[in-house]
This record gives sequence, structure tokens and C-alpha cells, in this order.
Amino acid sequence: MPNALHHFVQARRENVRKKLFGNRLDGIIFSTMSNIRYLSGFTGSAGVFLLGAKDARLLVDGRYTAQAASEAAGIQVLQYQNQNQGIAEAVKALNLETVGFEAAAVSVAMHSDLRKKMKGVTLVPLGDELSGLRAVKDRREKALMKKAAAIASEAMARLAREMRPGWTERETALQLEWIARRAGAEQVSFETIVGSGEHGALPHAKPTNRRLRHGDFVVIDFGVKYRGYCSDETCTFTIGELTAAKKNAYRAVLRAHDEAIAFVRAGKTAADVDALVRSTLGEKYGRYFVHGTGHGVGLEVHEAPRLAPNSRDVLLAGMVVTVEPGIYYPGRWGIRIEDTVFVKENGCELLTGMSKKLIVIE
Amino acid sequence: MPNALHHFVQARRENVRKKLFGNRLDGIIFSTMSNIRYLSGFTGSAGVFLLGAKDARLLVDGRYTAQAASEAAGIQVLQYQNQNQGIAEAVKALNLETVGFEAAAVSVAMHSDLRKKMKGVTLVPLGDELSGLRAVKDRREKALMKKAAAIASEAMARLAREMRPGWTERETALQLEWIARRAGAEQVSFETIVGSGEHGALPHAKPTNRRLRHGDFVVIDFGVKYRGYCSDETCTFTIGELTAAKKNAYRAVLRAHDEAIAFVRAGKTAADVDALVRSTLGEKYGRYFVHGTGHGVGLEVHEAPRLAPNSRDVLLAGMVVTVEPGIYYPGRWGIRIEDTVFVKENGCELLTGMSKKLIVIE
Repeated sequence: MPNALHHFVQARRENVRKKLFGNRLDGIIFSTMSNIRYLSGFTGSAGVFLLGAKDARLLVDGRYTAQAASEAAGIQVLQYQNQNQGIAEAVKALNLETVGFEAAAVSVAMHSDLRKKMKGVTLVPLGDELSGLRAVKDRREKALMKKAAAIASEAMARLAREMRPGWTERETALQLEWIARRAGAEQVSFETIVGSGEHGALPHAKPTNRRLRHGDFVVIDFGVKYRGYCSDETCTFTIGELTAAKKNAYRAVLRAHDEAIAFVRAGKTAADVDALVRSTLGEKYGRYFVHGTGHGVGLEVHEAPRLAPNSRDVLLAGMVVTVEPGIYYPGRWGIRIEDTVFVKENGCELLTGMSKKLIVIE
Repeated sequence: MPNALHHFVQARRENVRKKLFGNRLDGIIFSTMSNIRYLSGFTGSAGVFLLGAKDARLLVDGRYTAQAASEAAGIQVLQYQNQNQGIAEAVKALNLETVGFEAAAVSVAMHSDLRKKMKGVTLVPLGDELSGLRAVKDRREKALMKKAAAIASEAMARLAREMRPGWTERETALQLEWIARRAGAEQVSFETIVGSGEHGALPHAKPTNRRLRHGDFVVIDFGVKYRGYCSDETCTFTIGELTAAKKNAYRAVLRAHDEAIAFVRAGKTAADVDALVRSTLGEKYGRYFVHGTGHGVGLEVHEAPRLAPNSRDVLLAGMVVTVEPGIYYPGRWGIRIEDTVFVKENGCELLTGMSKKLIVIE
């Protein structure tokens, strides 16, 4: 009996063939590691996956031959010295004539080298057709993402109980990561953001030696990986009591967050979710919201779809997206509130688990 | 008085202009984050750096406007909604006509979009000219890399004292990372490898719940980042006493490592260093050495030069490279011994600090 992963990756490959091959292609070269993992199960850091109409080949260098053979059950593994040469030989061996490639991932240099090495083969750039390849999650993926989110949320909850005024941003980030790793996280899904006081106004603040002090907002944006799948969640805590202006701002962001989550469901456009957040924030706060409302999450922490004003994406059941309104006053302070949700026909399901009510650290 | 970083990034930009512009280019679009950081000081995760003959522009999205302005002192920061549109406008504003780009980093999709948006501008793919851009380190970089290596080596030394048979690979990796982070490491420079027993035969083993047991080799490949700069070092410990065959194998790898380090100096070719390792390992062990001898290290953990059989690189004073012979018996066990060295005119200087004599964990 095939193991669970084997079954799922096979279904994913069939799906790609059905949707993308048509009369147009007889193969696709995959060179992004997240797509390779998605379609083969291989978890290494370098390689190429060649999908033919009936057959497939996983190409790796000598570091990964043994690992690839054990992870990509049922797929023939080839070892290369020179990657592009390996691709050319495998394309020839499978008799492929018209082969797609990931236009957003293949560099100009790689493309030009492949053209030289594969005379007679037509290379077809694939763009938008591929961008949503992993956007709709299968049952296995949803379960892994729930687990990743649970590990991270439980770590955040424990951190909220332990942390104290006087900790540095760096200590805070490290403690949070330590708790999550002990609980089974493989690694963080992105560099942990801890932005206190004026650092909170930098949406991607790196933790520093600044100490948390009375009156601060502390923006903590944290995610972990579990079997390759990412979580993503942001809490903004406060150190001690707040001014009325800060309380009002927090309430405004929380309202934008809550209304967007109530709105999300299959069939809504990503741009409409974003527009709702902006209108809920209103003129007073909206102009300090300097990024998009959210993004897909999966094997990568940022993937399709994109929830932003100019996005053309439409939400589908099975997508996993973040909803993360924020406001940022340069040089002063910032707030962001983020959850990751699983899109359903009639609404959405929270994967992340922290309450977003304001938590006061004392 | 300009701050230290400001001074260095300016010198690096001048160097790029002198070496690459000539009569041929009047600008270069940099889109890899490590090159952008190297030339501007900006540490964010997204952006573009446009270097003109006299002027430069740093292009970022709204998340990074404030951070970019503070980090890239003296460089005008522009905020974009659409990255390629932002590039096109900046190229026009600077009156650039012939502009180079990173052929190994710019995707086929980005290139085709830029061509549409920049009619009349000649885009020149830059390949090998750029690959060694950051290979020779300046004084500031060397100091930061020494610090990164010292943090990691001291953490490895403490781990060697603390670890015990019965620990899992995951616990071992986590403890090592925890020690290093407490000592000032920003993050790991790559996913920590802990491969015990048969897992040691996978050069890039991910830590599992396998417990360290008597007679195991444990390959630990670990690095941290300090102010963006990476360290990279591998120790192979043994759990309890070894068989004579394993002792002999360890001695063979150590000899290959020592002889290569004694050989490294400015003027030697990377291929010759690799050939020396292979000949020292000899026929008995050499065919189980499944990867190259080493690679450059800097803002990225793998960068130019490349120490491998088919490399054309020549070592120059100021390069920082790893020397990491290993042998791998699939399904049984593996050994790797790795140091990172700074290349000098008359030899090289170790940056990593762990003794590579066999350490027995009991």
C-alpha cells in the first residue's frame, strides 16, 4: 500500500498534467524547491523535477542522491554533475519536445544555457498558469498547516504569560523560538519580528537590544515550519497601560481584522478583502496601512494568492491566506494583528489560535 | 564623519563602477538581496538597487521605506507599488541607456516585463563578471565573519561538553542553536545538520528523533549569522569508542582536511585544492566523497568561489572559503570535517575555531 505522502504527490502530479499539459506541452521543468517538494516529496535544498506526460525524473547532485531516492518514492532519481546538462539529458531520454518552465524562477542565464544544450526542444515560459499551483491545499496539507499554526500559537500564548517589561526584543524572540522548537517546530518560517515602541513602526523590524518598557506596543510576527509547512501570525501586546489614543488605534485595527475575517469566503476577490480592510480603517488610520492585507501561506510563507489593492486573485475553497491589517507611525509606534485562515465555501476557519484581544504585559 | 558602514559600501560601489562600467554600461540593476546589502547597507528582504555612474537609487516597497532610509545612508530611497515599474521610472529619471542586470538572478518573467516597460533602454545580461563581486572581503567583512565564526565555534565547544549519548538529533541541534543565539548569533546561516549513525551518510541530513548511541559518528554542520555574515563549520564527534575501521576513516578525512588547509593560498586554483583532497583521500575513500571540497562564504553561506573539480576559480587574498572533505557510506555512516579560512598571500587563516581532533562523547 502506498504511504500517505506518495498518494498525495501522485494526485498533485496528475492535477498538473490535466490542467497544464493539454495539447500544448509534453513536459514541465520545475526548479523551485517548494514546487519540487510539492510534486515529489523531496525536501532537499537543490534539484530539478522533470514532469513528463507519463513519467517523471528527479534530478539532484551527489549530496542528495540517497535522500532523494528515499523521499521521492516511485520516482526515478538521476544524479547530475552539471544541472543544466542533467536536464538536457533527461528531456532527451523522455523524448520531450515541448517543455514548459517556471518563468518567474528560471533565470535569464539558466534559460540561455538550457537553450544551447537543448537544441530542437521548444521551451515554453509558464507564468500565471503556475502561480496558483499550490494555492488550494489538499487534506494532508491542511492537517500539517493546522499543526504548524497550533505549535506557534501555543508558543505565543506561553510567551505572553512569561514575558516581562525589561526584556530585550532579542530575548523575547529567542524565548518564543525556543518554546516552539521544544514543542516540535522544525524551524521558523521567517525571521521572527519583535518590534517594540518606535521599532513597531517598521513592519519588518529585526529584534534589537531595545528593552520593552511601559507604554510600548510590541509587535510580534512569528511563524514556524512543521514538515515543511509554514505558519504566520502576529500579535501586538502592550507593556502596561495605554493612552486612550493607542487604545483607539488598536480597536480600529482589530475591527478591520475581524470584519475582513468575517467577509472571507470562496468567491470573494482578494482585492475586495483588501478594500474592506482599508475602508474599515477609514481615512484616519488607512493612510498608515503601508502594505497589503495578506498573502497565501503553504510550503512558502508568502505564496499565492495575494490580498492587495491591485490583485486579480479570487479566493477558492482550500486556499490558506493571512489577514493582517496594521498601522505604522514612523518613528513612533505600530500595530499589526494577523491570523491565517483556511478558506471555505461559506466562510473561513482560523488556523492560528491566539486571541487577538489586547493583552497587557505587566 | 561618515559611519564605518557608509564608508565601506561607498568604496564597494566605486569598485563595481570601476570594474564593470567601462564604456559599456551606464548603470546596473541589482536584485539579489545580498548584493543590495553589500552595496547599500539595506538589510530588508525585498528591493532593488540601481547603481548609476554617479548616482544610485534604492527601491523598496512600503514595508521598508523607513528602514531603507535609515540603513542606506546617503542613498536616495524610492518607494514602489509595482517593482518593475519602479525600476523603469528610476532608470528613466537617471537617464540611463545601457543597463546591466544579474543574469543569474533576474527571471525570464522579470526580464520580459522590464523590456516591455523600458523601451529604448538596452539591457545587458551580466554573468561571470558578477559572480565574484563579493568574493574578496574587505576589513569590515573579515571582522564580522571572525565574530560569526567565533560565536558558532564557542557554541560547538560548549555543546561538545554538554551533549550525552541518548540525546536525539533534534535536541542536539536545538541546544547548539540556543547556545549560539544567547551568545549573540542573529540566526543560523543554514538549517543545522545533525546526522548520527546512518543519517551521517546523508551530507545534508535533517535532525530527526533518532537518539545518539554507542559507536555512532555524529556529523554536526552548523553556522550562524552575525550582522548578516555567515559562518560554516562541521565537526564529526563519536559516541563512545570506535572500531579500528572508523578510526582509520576519520584519520584519512582529517589528513585530507589538514593538507588542503596547508595548501590554500592566493594564486592556487580552486580545482587544485579539490584535486589535492581527492588524491589525499585516495582510491579507498575518495569514491565516497560525493561533493565538492568547499565554497566561498560571506553574506550568503554559499557564494563564489567554488572549490570543485570543474571550477575555474583562482584563490585571491581576502577570499573566505570552506574546506570540507567528507566520506559517506550510504545506509551506514558518514564523516565530514570542515573549517572556514581567510585566504592570504602566503597561506590562510582559520576563522572557525574548533579543534578537529576526534572528540569522544561519553
